[in-house]
Amino acid sequence: MLVVVAYDVSLADKNGVRRLRRVAKKCEAYGQRVQNSVFECYLDYDNYVKLKVELLALIDQKVDSLKFYQLGKNYANKIETFGAKQVFDLHKDTLIF
Amino acid sequence: MLVVVAYDVSLADKNGVRRLRRVAKKCEAYGQRVQNSVFECYLDYDNYVKLKVELLALIDQKVDSLKFYQLGKNYANKIETFGAKQVFDLHKDTLIF
Repeated sequence: MLVVVAYDVSLADKNGVRRLRRVAKKCEAYGQRVQNSVFECYLDYDNYVKLKVELLALIDQKVDSLKFYQLGKNYANKIETFGAKQVFDLHKDTLIF
Repeated sequence: MLVVVAYDVSLADKNGVRRLRRVAKKCEAYGQRVQNSVFECYLDYDNYVKLKVELLALIDQKVDSLKFYQLGKNYANKIETFGAKQVFDLHKDTLIF
C-alpha cells in the first residue's frame, strides 16, 4: 500500500535540526521524497508499523508533528501532482525557521 | 471526500513569499491546516476542482510543487496523527529558506 508521510519538525530547540535530518533520512530509507517534508512510501503492513515505530522514536512528540495517510494499493488515481518535481539533497536539507 | 493538499512554494524568487501566503490563504478557505504546508480539506468534487484551478493560478509551476491526495469519504481509519497539534497563524507564515 502507499503511505504518505508528512512531518513538521520544530527547530525551536537545539536538537531540532538533528531530528529533522534523522526523520528525513529514515523516510528516505522507506520511500521517495516528493516535497520538503512529504514522502511517498510503498510499504507492506509490517514495514508500515516498523517505519512508524522508528519515526516515533526520532521525533519529540511535544513539538513535532507526524502524519500518515494510507492510500491503499490502488492509489494511482488518488494522487494528482502539479508543478516542479523537486530533486532533494537529503544532506542539504532546507531548514524551516 | 477528504483531500490532503501539500505544497512546496519556492522562495528563491522575489514573488515566492507572496505566492506562499496566497496558497496558504486559499487552502485555509477550503479546509484545515495540519502542518506547515499540508491541509486537510473535506470537499465535494466540484469544490475540489475549484480549489485545484484556483491554486494552479497562484503557483509558479516551474518552481513550486502541489500535491493532492484523495482519501475518499471513509478516511478516518486512513489517517494517523502523532505529536504536537500545531495551531497556525496564517498571517505569520513560517518561511522556508
